Amino acid sequence: MTRVEVEYCVPCGMLNRARDVSEAILKQFGESVDEVALVTGDDGVFIVRADGEVVFDKTEDEYDVDAIVRAVKPHVGATA
Amino acid sequence: MTRVEVEYCVPCGMLNRARDVSEAILKQFGESVDEVALVTGDDGVFIVRADGEVVFDKTEDEYDVDAIVRAVKPHVGATA
Repeated sequence: MTRVEVEYCVPCGMLNRARDVSEAILKQFGESVDEVALVTGDDGVFIVRADGEVVFDKTEDEYDVDAIVRAVKPHVGATA
Repeated sequence: MTRVEVEYCVPCGMLNRARDVSEAILKQFGESVDEVALVTGDDGVFIVRADGEVVFDKTEDEYDVDAIVRAVKPHVGATA
C-alpha cells in the first residue's frame, strides 16, 4: 500500500514537472503503488513524498526525474 | 478541500488517458482542488471521482476530457 505525493507550486507553473514525475513513477512501478497524488501548493514548493516520507525536496536536491524514481523505489512492494 | 481520483487500468495501458485527465483538471482548477490522485487499478477500470462521488465511469459514459472537467466543476470551490 504505497501512496506517493507530488506537491508542486501552482503559481510557479510546476504542473508539467509534477506531471512528468508522476508519470515516470507510474510507468516504473504500475500497480505496485496504490496511487500517485498531485497535490497543489504554492510558495515554490516541489516535494515528493512516499508514504509520508520526503524523498525529494527541491530546496535540497537537484531535480532529476530518474533520481526521484530511484528514491521512491524502496517504498514500493518487492515486485517493482 | 476537494480530492479528485482518477482510477485507471494499468495493464490496459490507460496511463496516458489518466494523465491527460488529471492534467486537464489541474490546469482548469489549480489550487481550487487539493489534489488529483492517479489510482492504479485493473480489469478495465476508468473511473473519475470527486470527493468520493463518481463523475465519470467509462462503462457508462463516453470518454471526453472536457466533459470530465465539467463534471468535476460542481465539486470545486467557488473560485474555479
